[in-house]
Amino acid sequence: MPAQTLEEVVSLCKRRGFIFQSAELYGGLQGVYDYGPLGVELKNNLKSAWWSANIYERDDVVGLDSSILTHKAVFCYSGHEDTFADMMADCYECKKRWRADHIINGKCEACGGEHFTQPRPFNMMFKTNIGPVQDEKSFAYLRPETAQGIFTNFKNVIDSTSQKLPFGIAQIGKAFRNEITPRNFIFRVGEFEQMEIEFFVKPGEDEKWHDTWVATRLEWWKKQGLSHDNLELLEQDKADLAHYAKKTVDIVYRFPHGIEELEGIANRTDFDLGSHTRHQNELNLSSNVKPNNESVSKLAILDQDTKQFIVPYVIEPSAGVDRGVLAILVEAYTEEALGDNKKRVVLKLKPHLSPIKVAIIPLARNNPELVDKAKAIKKQIQALSLGRVAYEDSGNIGKSYRRHDEIGTPICITVDFDTIGLGSNQSLENTVTVRDRDTMEQVRISITDLPDFIRQHILI
Amino acid sequence: MPAQTLEEVVSLCKRRGFIFQSAELYGGLQGVYDYGPLGVELKNNLKSAWWSANIYERDDVVGLDSSILTHKAVFCYSGHEDTFADMMADCYECKKRWRADHIINGKCEACGGEHFTQPRPFNMMFKTNIGPVQDEKSFAYLRPETAQGIFTNFKNVIDSTSQKLPFGIAQIGKAFRNEITPRNFIFRVGEFEQMEIEFFVKPGEDEKWHDTWVATRLEWWKKQGLSHDNLELLEQDKADLAHYAKKTVDIVYRFPHGIEELEGIANRTDFDLGSHTRHQNELNLSSNVKPNNESVSKLAILDQDTKQFIVPYVIEPSAGVDRGVLAILVEAYTEEALGDNKKRVVLKLKPHLSPIKVAIIPLARNNPELVDKAKAIKKQIQALSLGRVAYEDSGNIGKSYRRHDEIGTPICITVDFDTIGLGSNQSLENTVTVRDRDTMEQVRISITDLPDFIRQHILI
Repeated sequence: MPAQTLEEVVSLCKRRGFIFQSAELYGGLQGVYDYGPLGVELKNNLKSAWWSANIYERDDVVGLDSSILTHKAVFCYSGHEDTFADMMADCYECKKRWRADHIINGKCEACGGEHFTQPRPFNMMFKTNIGPVQDEKSFAYLRPETAQGIFTNFKNVIDSTSQKLPFGIAQIGKAFRNEITPRNFIFRVGEFEQMEIEFFVKPGEDEKWHDTWVATRLEWWKKQGLSHDNLELLEQDKADLAHYAKKTVDIVYRFPHGIEELEGIANRTDFDLGSHTRHQNELNLSSNVKPNNESVSKLAILDQDTKQFIVPYVIEPSAGVDRGVLAILVEAYTEEALGDNKKRVVLKLKPHLSPIKVAIIPLARNNPELVDKAKAIKKQIQALSLGRVAYEDSGNIGKSYRRHDEIGTPICITVDFDTIGLGSNQSLENTVTVRDRDTMEQVRISITDLPDFIRQHILI
Repeated sequence: MPAQTLEEVVSLCKRRGFIFQSAELYGGLQGVYDYGPLGVELKNNLKSAWWSANIYERDDVVGLDSSILTHKAVFCYSGHEDTFADMMADCYECKKRWRADHIINGKCEACGGEHFTQPRPFNMMFKTNIGPVQDEKSFAYLRPETAQGIFTNFKNVIDSTSQKLPFGIAQIGKAFRNEITPRNFIFRVGEFEQMEIEFFVKPGEDEKWHDTWVATRLEWWKKQGLSHDNLELLEQDKADLAHYAKKTVDIVYRFPHGIEELEGIANRTDFDLGSHTRHQNELNLSSNVKPNNESVSKLAILDQDTKQFIVPYVIEPSAGVDRGVLAILVEAYTEEALGDNKKRVVLKLKPHLSPIKVAIIPLARNNPELVDKAKAIKKQIQALSLGRVAYEDSGNIGKSYRRHDEIGTPICITVDFDTIGLGSNQSLENTVTVRDRDTMEQVRISITDLPDFIRQHILI
């Protein structure tokens, strides 16, 4: 059974080094988090699983890593300058500013005042001044999404690769939004990471591809360990759709704090390329775009059959990395009764996501032969390139097992005196005890057989 | 022989999809770059090699991923607010601002004016306003280095792991500096990535550890393909050292534009933890730190022998990812004469860094059986999890080989009619032609033997 409250997960994250509040020692920076030694491995493993599934295992998607600092023209023509905003109102009494939809009962949360300014749009993009002079003109935006860096590189990618429609460009990276009310731990934050694909298709093939991507992405989340019962597809109402979107389906997850979006898959039509292209008028765009006289690139593809330029439609599966991490932690978090009124906390992560794949534990940490043998085995398993392998000598065996249950290590290997031929049973020389996280079963395995055994357990 | 000019590398990067200028279609954002489909793979491979060497292959270093947005108190006490600055002067005539050391011959480059304000320090940190109100108080910095996120999490990491001195915390991530004169392609830019280790040691053991890290890091760069002849160690003069540093050794590389720093290894003494700790006065610090009454964390470790708190010294190997990528591209870039006045460009990357590990090429792209076989082999090789494997059908075999030479693919595999049992030689069924990038030699190999053959070529 997954975590029942967010607090259980937050507490585990702090205690075991998954996630900390940023600058905690100075009172914390609201809505900004740091990933600790285990969190960074979990997050990297999730990103790596996404990259493999969407780039390596396909022939029609390539990767990209565009900058965070973004030319202001990009967010002028993308529409973000005009529309990427929350409605805000100021309290007349104490001057505090609130999101209009958060002013409950018409009272200011700070002073109880009942009079507010008319709500006005408040843009959520962060700006920063660049160059030597601080003025109103010399600024860039911190991107609020990675998507635009893909659109602005469309021609560069076409020119430097041999991609033909349909094809996609995928990117993982940080994005920033000035969230007035960040909340629910790493769910809604000011600095976060996205995994986005912009998949370019011929107009007319967009609906089919949209369906395909919804199904593909849902399956992927299940492979990361999210259960069918906690996942749902939610089509956005036509009335709520962004003006450029033809259809959007959200993959939502049943978090302890509510059912919330993990990923949105939008059919964005020709809006994005149409917004950033030169010669908009010659391209027969179906979208309503802002006139663009600044772009120097034609973001269109010559159709070899019709000899006409076409502006591809875009299907965008856009997922939140941090939300994914949170859902995976919630789903994996398990408390199990062990009898005798004892319990254990076990993080039932899919092994390919586990921060530590294998822990190697010497039975005694002060015996040089045991330690050498354990370290040699650690080195051997590490060389399989399956992720982090830990040499663990921080407590007794029982404590080590519990600690690794709680952080989701799928396999613990104990090196004892039998292993080094100094135990009572000579036939056990060069064998180790292998313990399974989920079943807690222990088996004795020859060191020679470890690589195959571990590969079978760890790989997806 | 490596590239002789930066232009050769810049041109290859654009043409083949390694690196593009950010927002090129809007005239470009100065000093900011995007990594294309091949660049992102190369960069990820380099980061991954660093992470493996410094975290996975050691038992005394753990990872971290702290936020980019940083609480202003962090850079107050770190000293960056006071000292992380270039000296700037304004032209009295046209009001343009210049770096004081760039005003050559005493004339303004823009208007020729000869009168300037007194040079004043201009802080290189980017700021951004956070929260609903834009005022002088509600801002955060974009970090100019990843290091501070390690220091501020020191206690969190100690509390959640079982690390004992000496141990390190390692981080890879973006950092930002308002460089007035970004230059030399991705060498000096406003947005860049760092790979930093803060290695905490007992005072007194710092000099030994500093020497060890200098040697370790130099060896690592050689393993990435940089030749001994193009690398050098440069100890900074005592007079140039930052006030907190006891010793700094730079690993420098012979770029076409000059001999420049790839990585600096500094002995930072107890300055960093001492700057951010509470109760500074009780800790017998050796560094001269700014008085800190805001921190709520004691960044010290209780010595079990003496029962005294000690503030560890810090050895910091700090490397630039983008500079590393540039050095590796420069070193790998090779033009070879092939006879008949023909030449080829080949990127002699270490195979573990190559963006594409293996290209699978069907002899004819319109033959379904060949295509199916080639795709099946692609899938099989991809499943080895060694990085990106490409299915390549964009040209004839000769062109495909040249293209993959130029992007550094170590192995090309050609699937022909013999492979599928439809050629003249039945004994060649289920064999393929394997071509080596560097020697251009071709051998016939059984498909069954491919995995072992490829593993041996690709792994470090």
